[in-house]
Formats: sequence, structure tokens, C-alpha cells
Amino acid sequence: MTEINSIEIIGLIAATCTTAAFLPQVYQTWKTKNVSGLSLPMLTIFFTGVLLWLVYGTYIHSLSIILANAITIVSVFLLIVFKLRYRNR
Amino acid sequence: MTEINSIEIIGLIAATCTTAAFLPQVYQTWKTKNVSGLSLPMLTIFFTGVLLWLVYGTYIHSLSIILANAITIVSVFLLIVFKLRYRNR
Repeated sequence: MTEINSIEIIGLIAATCTTAAFLPQVYQTWKTKNVSGLSLPMLTIFFTGVLLWLVYGTYIHSLSIILANAITIVSVFLLIVFKLRYRNR
Repeated sequence: MTEINSIEIIGLIAATCTTAAFLPQVYQTWKTKNVSGLSLPMLTIFFTGVLLWLVYGTYIHSLSIILANAITIVSVFLLIVFKLRYRNR
């Protein structure tokens, strides 16, 4: 149980990093409205992947995977909205 | 065992999506040399997170997590190299 907990801490730090990594991207895109460097195919495939990770995490009962992907999916959704809204500027 | 396998298939599809999602981004960045929409803090934190996911995946013996993050870390590394090389253009 102690071992599982320390592993889960590594997972939660990993989750924090990969989740937090999208926040500056979301902020920068919202602020600059510069979406030319963002790829819509990338965002769409990524969204699908994150959704499936949520399913996977739920099945294997991994708190880290569930938390990470629940938050990331919101960030990716926002980037898709920005890309669609600002791509013709 | 059958249940574990079908769960692992969902994980592997998720892994394929989140991994493949970086390929158009890497290709687009390499092709256009447009890195203005990419955030260096995001890439750096993301790289750290992916590295920790690799450690986590190894500990919980998740083939999906190990494969996804082993390939993603190479893509993120390339994006960091592009960002550093082309940011002053």
C-alpha cells in the first residue's frame, strides 16, 4: 500500500506537469489570438486520445490518469474553440 | 485476462491518438518554422511530465503508458529543439 501510494505520487506529479503544460498554451492562444502555429488535426486526434485515456484510467482505477485527462480534455477543448474562432484572422 | 486485454486495447488506441497528435504538429513546425504559437514553458513542463509518466507506467506495468510516453517524449524533444532554433526568426 505504501508502495502504491509513492507510485501514485509520481503519477500525480506527472499529471500535474502534463496538465499544467496546457495552461500557458491556452493562455498564450487566448491572449495573442495567434493560432497559426496550432494544428487542427493534432488537436482533434489529441482530444480523442485524451477521451480514451479517461476510459482506460477508469478501468484500471488509476487516479493519476483520470485526474490528468479530465483536466486536459477541457484545455484541449478550449484550444479547438480558439483555433476555429481565430483561424481566419 | 481477456478483460485486461480489451482494456489494454483501449489504452493502446488512446496511446496512438495522443502520440500521433504530435506528429502533424512536429511536421508543421519543421515545415513552416513558425514557432510563435508554441510556448517554451509549456514544452518544458510537458517534457518533464512525460518523463514522469514513463516512470509511472513502468511501475504499474502499463504497456500503453510506457509506449505512449516513450514516443511522445521524442516528439516533444524535437519541438523544443525547433522552438530554440527558430524563435528569433
